[in-house]
Amino acid sequence: SVNPDLASERQTASFSVEKLTAQLDGGVEQTRIRRAVVEAIESDPVFSRENQYFQSQNERYEAAVRKAVHLQKKMHEMGWTENGPEFKYIYRALSGDVAFLLHRIFMRSISVLGSDKQIAKWIPLATQYQLIGSYAQTELGHGTYLQGLETTAVFDITTQEFILNTPKISAMKWWPGDMGRSATHTVVFAQLYVQGKCYGVHPFIVQIRSLQDHSLCPGITAGDIGPKMNFEHIDNGYLMMQNVRVPRENMLNKFCEVQPDGTYVRRGSQKINYFTMTTVRISLLSDEVLTPLMKACTIAIRYSVVRRQSKLKPGEEEAKILDYQTQQEKLLPQLAAAYAFHFINDYLQELFNRGYREIQRKNFDTLPELHAFSSGFKAMVTQHCTSAVEICLRACGGHGYSLLSGLPSLYTKILASCIYEGENTVLLLQTARFLIKCFMAASAGQPVPPSVTYLAAVKPGKCPAKNKLDFLSPDIYTEAYQHMAVRLISSAAAKLQDLIQSGVKKHDAWNQCTVQLAQAAKAHCHYITVKNFAETVEKLETKAGIQKIMKHLCDLFALHGIFSNSGVFLHDGYISGVQMDMVTASYLDLLAVIRKDAVPLVDAFDFTDKSLNSALGSYDGQVYHRLYEWAQKSPTNKQMSPAYERYLKPLLHNRPSKL
Amino acid sequence: SVNPDLASERQTASFSVEKLTAQLDGGVEQTRIRRAVVEAIESDPVFSRENQYFQSQNERYEAAVRKAVHLQKKMHEMGWTENGPEFKYIYRALSGDVAFLLHRIFMRSISVLGSDKQIAKWIPLATQYQLIGSYAQTELGHGTYLQGLETTAVFDITTQEFILNTPKISAMKWWPGDMGRSATHTVVFAQLYVQGKCYGVHPFIVQIRSLQDHSLCPGITAGDIGPKMNFEHIDNGYLMMQNVRVPRENMLNKFCEVQPDGTYVRRGSQKINYFTMTTVRISLLSDEVLTPLMKACTIAIRYSVVRRQSKLKPGEEEAKILDYQTQQEKLLPQLAAAYAFHFINDYLQELFNRGYREIQRKNFDTLPELHAFSSGFKAMVTQHCTSAVEICLRACGGHGYSLLSGLPSLYTKILASCIYEGENTVLLLQTARFLIKCFMAASAGQPVPPSVTYLAAVKPGKCPAKNKLDFLSPDIYTEAYQHMAVRLISSAAAKLQDLIQSGVKKHDAWNQCTVQLAQAAKAHCHYITVKNFAETVEKLETKAGIQKIMKHLCDLFALHGIFSNSGVFLHDGYISGVQMDMVTASYLDLLAVIRKDAVPLVDAFDFTDKSLNSALGSYDGQVYHRLYEWAQKSPTNKQMSPAYERYLKPLLHNRPSKL
Repeated sequence: SVNPDLASERQTASFSVEKLTAQLDGGVEQTRIRRAVVEAIESDPVFSRENQYFQSQNERYEAAVRKAVHLQKKMHEMGWTENGPEFKYIYRALSGDVAFLLHRIFMRSISVLGSDKQIAKWIPLATQYQLIGSYAQTELGHGTYLQGLETTAVFDITTQEFILNTPKISAMKWWPGDMGRSATHTVVFAQLYVQGKCYGVHPFIVQIRSLQDHSLCPGITAGDIGPKMNFEHIDNGYLMMQNVRVPRENMLNKFCEVQPDGTYVRRGSQKINYFTMTTVRISLLSDEVLTPLMKACTIAIRYSVVRRQSKLKPGEEEAKILDYQTQQEKLLPQLAAAYAFHFINDYLQELFNRGYREIQRKNFDTLPELHAFSSGFKAMVTQHCTSAVEICLRACGGHGYSLLSGLPSLYTKILASCIYEGENTVLLLQTARFLIKCFMAASAGQPVPPSVTYLAAVKPGKCPAKNKLDFLSPDIYTEAYQHMAVRLISSAAAKLQDLIQSGVKKHDAWNQCTVQLAQAAKAHCHYITVKNFAETVEKLETKAGIQKIMKHLCDLFALHGIFSNSGVFLHDGYISGVQMDMVTASYLDLLAVIRKDAVPLVDAFDFTDKSLNSALGSYDGQVYHRLYEWAQKSPTNKQMSPAYERYLKPLLHNRPSKL
Repeated sequence: SVNPDLASERQTASFSVEKLTAQLDGGVEQTRIRRAVVEAIESDPVFSRENQYFQSQNERYEAAVRKAVHLQKKMHEMGWTENGPEFKYIYRALSGDVAFLLHRIFMRSISVLGSDKQIAKWIPLATQYQLIGSYAQTELGHGTYLQGLETTAVFDITTQEFILNTPKISAMKWWPGDMGRSATHTVVFAQLYVQGKCYGVHPFIVQIRSLQDHSLCPGITAGDIGPKMNFEHIDNGYLMMQNVRVPRENMLNKFCEVQPDGTYVRRGSQKINYFTMTTVRISLLSDEVLTPLMKACTIAIRYSVVRRQSKLKPGEEEAKILDYQTQQEKLLPQLAAAYAFHFINDYLQELFNRGYREIQRKNFDTLPELHAFSSGFKAMVTQHCTSAVEICLRACGGHGYSLLSGLPSLYTKILASCIYEGENTVLLLQTARFLIKCFMAASAGQPVPPSVTYLAAVKPGKCPAKNKLDFLSPDIYTEAYQHMAVRLISSAAAKLQDLIQSGVKKHDAWNQCTVQLAQAAKAHCHYITVKNFAETVEKLETKAGIQKIMKHLCDLFALHGIFSNSGVFLHDGYISGVQMDMVTASYLDLLAVIRKDAVPLVDAFDFTDKSLNSALGSYDGQVYHRLYEWAQKSPTNKQMSPAYERYLKPLLHNRPSKL
């Protein structure tokens, strides 16, 4: 039975939850397919995550391998294929709790970087799991800066082999998933040397474990890097190589090859490689970043209408904590952000699909823009969503701190997204470099890519809003964001120019501007997100109350951004202090409006109880019963503790049973 | 041998590290005592935390109980007593990794709330560990709002007993430490009923486990609440009672008593109880909040001079990451905050010692001010330090995410400080209530407590700074903080008044202002922290370069606050946009200055490698060797995984050993 405090929240929804779900999925048919996949996965006990919060790192790894192997069978059974419409829902339905994800990256890198002959040899082996692959790029001492990798591959002309070595400890491969215990093969990135000359970093297929007994191959040292903040199910590994020889054919050679006589040949464009890395940053947003935020919002908001604390009105019963303005102000902006980022993700996917089609037609013109987009949005969205999940966790008080709430594992997992696939600050600075370049071009009257034409149209002036309702106009706030982004980009550019003109060396000048450059890049992405949200709302169907509630969320997202970054809007007087008070008033008013639909808005994300795996967030809101029931299953309750026999009994011994 | 990249940082210190350490400890003699305690604890293998990151919740609990029992012996051996000068260093030396902390709260509550007779009976039993105590206040459905507790204690006049019951699941005691598995007794807070009348919440001593075989007493259901984000070593527990009878003498009755005939008598002042809760909030800051931040800064800053990445200057070797402005901007403000909060902690301790002396002389006048201070500073400092530790973690990239860095456990532990001993938002609003009251009084010309007299002296006007150097004047920035705090408090008060005058009911009006009230309370605490830092620097000895470097840190702390909360300073034009650019320039300049002393500034915290327990942060900076060495000890490397036999072998079976 549904907790009446939760049930009552659903009776007053201002819109159709089912229609909003379909909107989020991209249509009714998509919703149907997604639900069918979820149903198939969740009804299969092998995929259960029931005991996840009680398992050790070893147990989590076991389960993930078991699931990965079972998934092959399941897909066959269900008739799901890698190109079918179901495929994209499988990972979400598993909540990512499965091994061999790097096996897929191994295959992708061979497909992209390998010759037709290499593809013909390795891809069938990998597809049929004749081997398990990994992808060994990052080293103990080297991450984001790939040119700094220290692993070496020296071509031995006499044997026609590459000799791979880990010259020192900082060159040890470190972090690759599936490598610590599972992988038999890996793609190793190493500095290529031919006849004493270094040709830079290249990829090599290296076998690391025997296919018969899984023992390490000669010259290989490998293992698991130990406990991490999350990802217990993944065997992130280390790898050292000592004179490991692979045949000449194992260097992936679509774009460059070492010929038998030692001649180094480079062919075709390498740009497409960067594009692959670029797409990964965008493709991770949905499953690794948005889904966790949506789950955290679902858990925290459902809990906040079930939990009662203190009295809002003297004499009444204790109030639902979501009725407190401070609780609304914690959670509702995160809910608005989840929608804002859902829509920007759609926009980015579309942009990248279009870009990919261009690239297939050998038009590489959009690459710089796409690279800047993927870097900036990866950084901005992961950072924003990580903070948002943390806010959800803290907003649930003590129970949010229990692993059983599901919130700690959502937080510790999403946090990693700020670090992997490019460290966020480095990425923001890449976006900033693009913006500065475009700003300079625009200032000089040169053409710039479509997404940054706004940089050319710098309009001085003031925000025209006259009262708090004016700030509910998308034109008003979108203009304000645009003005702010242009100002931050132009002033960073001006500072950079000034420094260089005053004699500071270019690289020093750049470093001295990086705090402001990173801020400018974030401002750009924030502006595009607000603009895209407003434009999306414009296009939504007006039926079933969906456009109306989305408009409220868009307003909230925009005004929350102005409220909490007020300095950058006030700085040049574009928004005055008096206007900022109007922003604040409209923003706080919106909280009370959206609060009424808060539960329907998270219901629309359509997570099952099994996928939330949270004692606080279930659809029925039976929080306290579930916490108690789950706690009893904890291994800490399964036995009289040995500590009693060893330490407490001697301490307490020979006393009356009762004092 | 010390990593040369770290060693070189120490050669250029602008001040004496040893003198700064003594300054932080409060004198050379204190440093000596602290080091002796640390040495004694760390040289004893029972207290080792070497395998902590590899242990299960059960193993952590075992170890904590073992350490608690051993600590009794150790203290006796060393001649340390609870009132001796060593005592306060023991917990820090153990990094809090010890059981029976709630046993101490059990004793403290009996000492404060019990009659002389009760003290005479229970305290010796507890001191000699004839029992193990806990403190059962929080319930599954009730935390910060104590009046809402649902556990009942009904007086049975015929048997002269109280009958304790858990009437429903939300009334179950939940979270008390040491209760899940260890405690034999606990102080239970319950609603007292005598002859049908409810007298509110009172404390009762209840035995929950047998002293002979540790089995649960009749009517008691208890156990461990399961996995949490940290505190694996503590058996946070649950407790249900069904008609559990305790004698009349077990209600702690210093302040109120039920007499044999059922007459309820209240005597003396209960205010002193609140004072006890108040002091706990202040006393936790040092060990639970400041120490973790100082450790996180030490780890992240040492790592940032050892880790090299990308080239700052073309052609040179890769740069230390601390040489990047963005990395400085992440870490150095956190370092400045650690010092700022160290000094405000000294200030608060002194304030509370003075307050305690007054209270012993039956002068309760300072209680409201002390309560407001303890609430606001607990909230502000825990929140600021939690964010700071998270920034340190993220600033270490992938390796910060490994448990072996020590940063994840520092973060997950400090995070709890935002929740326990009063939820931060609730606490800020208590401070805000005090501030609004004082502001009203000051406006009406009435006297107010010394810490808030500044509210009476509202000076309109503008910041007089004319160039970026002016912002290195403590008068300039302290004035700015004061102005900002007064503005936020006065405008929240004005909004509240306006709402009430327009007919909104008082409690609704309060709720509608809470976002701004919480902001105002934080602003007040921020102002006091800056002011205190500046005043402390003023008084420091000018010798040995200490005053100079502390002045830089004070400036950085103040300017970072203005830079990152620029909106509240720009809002009414007190600081103009042009002046804000000066703030930014001075702030960024300071980063480069303090960067030179960053390592000596964390060395001064004087953490041993064992107390940091971090593969990234050790004194010798041998990061990569240590990560590799520690990873090899992980249980994930101790055996061929059963996953191989079960899943991988069937998958990979019957293939040639090499492809």
